[in-house]
Amino acid sequence: MTGQPAPPAMPPRAVVEFTCTGTAVGKMRNELDVRMVRPMREQFTLATDEGAFHGGDASAPPPLAMFVGALTGCIMTQIRAFAKRMDVSLTGLRVETRVEWDWEAKGRIYETAPKSFEMDVFIDSDDALEKQEELVRKARRGCFIEQTLGQKNTIRHRIRTPEGWRSID
Amino acid sequence: MTGQPAPPAMPPRAVVEFTCTGTAVGKMRNELDVRMVRPMREQFTLATDEGAFHGGDASAPPPLAMFVGALTGCIMTQIRAFAKRMDVSLTGLRVETRVEWDWEAKGRIYETAPKSFEMDVFIDSDDALEKQEELVRKARRGCFIEQTLGQKNTIRHRIRTPEGWRSID
Repeated sequence: MTGQPAPPAMPPRAVVEFTCTGTAVGKMRNELDVRMVRPMREQFTLATDEGAFHGGDASAPPPLAMFVGALTGCIMTQIRAFAKRMDVSLTGLRVETRVEWDWEAKGRIYETAPKSFEMDVFIDSDDALEKQEELVRKARRGCFIEQTLGQKNTIRHRIRTPEGWRSID
Repeated sequence: MTGQPAPPAMPPRAVVEFTCTGTAVGKMRNELDVRMVRPMREQFTLATDEGAFHGGDASAPPPLAMFVGALTGCIMTQIRAFAKRMDVSLTGLRVETRVEWDWEAKGRIYETAPKSFEMDVFIDSDDALEKQEELVRKARRGCFIEQTLGQKNTIRHRIRTPEGWRSID
């Protein structure tokens, strides 16, 4: 837990933008070219797949495993980054996350809905419990993924056609 | 794009549950033991890290890259799984995703909020455009991550103390 991060050189406000180009290959594998394009540029090569149950080759984790891992990693990053800035000692950190979804068959296809999200935080610190609690509270507000899940988002979909884009409601 | 998945042997309704235990190691790396625990059991070993900008060693992708990849992979999995079940031909699939967040400094720490989500879908199919559109529409409703982002979720946090659990509002 050495080498805590220095505060980044960011302006007072910024837009953080990521893009991803996913290409379907094999049975159920998706090769993902993920890029941060603002405020700085970085590139990441990822992939998802499915197990035999869903007709895949299990060559990469499924999207839901990656999603639950990203949610967990995001709050952990925030807790570590903010501990330094809030002068909270932190000698160890573990987070246990549980996420449930409802699944319902609709003929041959199905629909899904989120059911519950729980995160248990284990902090090793010499500081008062109140400081640790305030750290987690602030980390939640700095966590991109938690803030995203905490509000109703609209995702705009378009499909490419020979005559141009068509929106999918 | 061969070997489309068979419909899984699922009951009419089910709860799908994932857990993740994240352990902080090194500077900003999180080692993630992700498990599906219901309705079947699978285990995945993942990790996140941060780049030098955030004080990390870039030994794994950052949580946001994993999140955007998971969102893209999830709708792609659904489109491929449902194409078979809805009898829509599918010889190629590409999805281009863009996600923006607002970032704002608050003293030495910061807050974030989601700003926009856009997904462009490129389908290679011999079927009528209306069938392709209906496929994407149904895939959205079957996509766990899209359905999660489309509603306001509550994430319950607890911190472990010597006297037991304490909730963090």
